[in-house]
Formats: sequence, C-alpha cells, structure tokens
Amino acid sequence: MKISARNQLKGRIVEVRKGTTTAHVRVEIGSGQIVTAAITNEAVDDLGLKEGNMATVVIKASDVMVAVD
Amino acid sequence: MKISARNQLKGRIVEVRKGTTTAHVRVEIGSGQIVTAAITNEAVDDLGLKEGNMATVVIKASDVMVAVD
Amino acid sequence: MKISARNQLKGRIVEVRKGTTTAHVRVEIGSGQIVTAAITNEAVDDLGLKEGNMATVVIKASDVMVAVD
Amino acid sequence: MKISARNQLKGRIVEVRKGTTTAHVRVEIGSGQIVTAAITNEAVDDLGLKEGNMATVVIKASDVMVAVD
Amino acid sequence: MKISARNQLKGRIVEVRKGTTTAHVRVEIGSGQIVTAAITNEAVDDLGLKEGNMATVVIKASDVMVAVD
Amino acid sequence: MKISARNQLKGRIVEVRKGTTTAHVRVEIGSGQIVTAAITNEAVDDLGLKEGNMATVVIKASDVMVAVD
Repeated sequence: MKISARNQLKGRIVEVRKGTTTAHVRVEIGSGQIVTAAITNEAVDDLGLKEGNMATVVIKASDVMVAVD
Repeated sequence: MKISARNQLKGRIVEVRKGTTTAHVRVEIGSGQIVTAAITNEAVDDLGLKEGNMATVVIKASDVMVAVD
Repeated sequence: MKISARNQLKGRIVEVRKGTTTAHVRVEIGSGQIVTAAITNEAVDDLGLKEGNMATVVIKASDVMVAVD
Repeated sequence: MKISARNQLKGRIVEVRKGTTTAHVRVEIGSGQIVTAAITNEAVDDLGLKEGNMATVVIKASDVMVAVD
Repeated sequence: MKISARNQLKGRIVEVRKGTTTAHVRVEIGSGQIVTAAITNEAVDDLGLKEGNMATVVIKASDVMVAVD
Repeated sequence: MKISARNQLKGRIVEVRKGTTTAHVRVEIGSGQIVTAAITNEAVDDLGLKEGNMATVVIKASDVMVAVD
C-alpha cells in the first residue's frame, strides 16, 4: 500500500503504553528524536506493535505546523 | 510559549512554496529526513519563513499514525 | 504496509481536481457514497491518482465525528 | 445545522465503547462497511449515542488520505 | 443536526477569501476574537457563506492544543 | 516560540480532567465561551496545567469547520 500522506519517517518503537481506549506509541526516528503517536488500543493489537520493533510514523502534511523562536 | 503538542522537531527550512491560499513548507529535521507542512500563506508571511532558516515542526500526537511493513 | 488508521474504505476515484498546491480527490466507496479527500498535488502525482482507478480512502478514528438528527 | 465538512455518511451505530475519557463509536455505513470514530465520552452522553440508533459520521476533507496498492 | 464536536462557537463572518481549491473564512466569535477556518471552496458555495452572515465555528476537541507562556 | 497555527485564543483553565492516557482541559476564552481540548496526560503534567491558570488554546485553521443554521 502506498499512501498520500507526505510524511513517513522510519524508526524503532521505544514504548507502547495502552490506556483504556487510547494508546501512546513512541518511535525513535533517528538522531535520538522521538515521535509520539496517540492511536487506538485496537490498532496496537492489530499491527502487533511492540517495543524494539521497526515502524514508520505517518503524518498528513495538513497536520504539521511550523514554529520559529 | 510552551505548547501541549508532543512532537516538536527542530530543523532547517529547505523549501517554501506558496499556493493561492495554502503553502507547503519543507523542513529537514536531520539525518536527511524531510517533513512537509501544509499551512496558510498568511502564516508563512507572519513568521517570515524562508529557505535556509531554522524552524521547528510541531505535530499533535493524535495526528500521528503508525505503520508496519 | 499496514497502517494504524482504523478506517480504510475501498472504492473508485470519480474525480481528481488539482488546485495550486491542494487537490481534491473524490472516491466512490460503494452504495453511491462519495468521500472527498483534500491532499497535496504532489501526492496525486506521486501515487498516479486518476479518475476510474481503484483507491482506498484512509481516515484516522480521531478525525471522525458523529452527528444525529 | 449545515456544516462545511464534505463527508457525511449516514448509517447505524453498531458499537459504543467508552474509555475513561475517550469513547469509540462504530457506525455501519452500508455495504457492511464500518467507520470507527474516537470521540469524547461527554459527546456520547450529550448525543445519547446507542447501539442500534441511526447516526451520521462526519469527516473534514482535509482529514482524508488516499492509498493505492 | 447535533454533532459530537465539543467546540461550537457562534459568531459573524468577517471575511471569505477563496483560493483555487481551499478557502479561508474568518469568523468573529465575540470579544473581538477572530477564528480562521480553512475549508473547501465547495463548502463556501454549498453553505452560501458571506461576509456579515452569522455562522458557527466547529472544532473537534482532539484538534485543540493548549499553550502557556 | 511563534507558531503557524492561525488560532490562538487566550483564556483561563476552568477544568482539567485526566483519563488513563488522554486528558480533557477546558478553557474559558471570554464571553463565557468554553473551549475543550483533548490532549495527553503527559502534556498536562509537562505544562503544569491547573484550574485557574491562564492558558492559550491553539487550533490549526485546517481543523476548523463552519456551520450555519
């Protein structure tokens, strides 16, 4: 599958924390930078997301903001 | 200002392309990884975003998905 | 690639309209229901999206609202 | 009320699962296709969402992605 | 129609600016505060949005961030 | 920090309710209007968000819809 989302950053899962319905998954995408995703518990189970596994974080361009100091 | 968005990745702007109302800004966040943001032209002007400048991409955790091969 | 987004609806592209930076792609997902996606022109080119082709609309559960009469 | 969101798909609620703050509501929109919404528990109570009731899923076009095989 | 989105702020449209596909609509919600919406041109036409008209801005709670100084 | 998000409304926090992973923060932005944000518990702790404190709600223009009666 190839998706329209412009941002697809490969990395390694460093934490999976499930809540009652919403899980937080943290992925290290290189250079020590961590990206946090809030997804459903169901998706965590469905994709078998586990600490240590490779994964890609996917973000639609219209969901990205830019900040300056 | 400190914002709740969990993902704040520093980098350098490599391209600013304005449309009629929506602009695309591309930021290199290290390791050669590029993040594309679709923001308003007005924000580009307001923040003075220009190729070569430092900038931080900001993404809310609930807008991040995870994919596996 | 398998993605965490809970909503993946298969259909056929019925219209691709490019703007200056943002394109609108309309996909018929069966029963005559049309879903409109606003994505980058770049994604349209990258995926080769064309009227008549099969495609899947993908939507994160946290972006879905519910309404009642 | 008439809303700008381009995607409004009518269906029937097949599941309401509340978490501590976030609920998952699943709506069958015809042809056996299910759409999952992650909304607040408060919205579930406010709208009286219940399995078996009719409901419309509402999605902004800028939150829809497109994928191809 | 009653929608799950927690934030529904009534106001008056102060500007409608159409792009090629994406329009920016600015609504004054009281106390001189302006909210900007980026929606499709098609939605502007469909709802007949015009400067001076009353309108409600609608925002899903999961799309709201919080910042402190 | 200056951010591209077009909507930044100042107000006072009137409620912070944590879930297992997702918190709901309610901010009164004047004229008695309340905005609800669904953010991570981690962000609540990181920013020290507390009832009674001043805060700014931040919303990207592409996440705002418009409705009419």
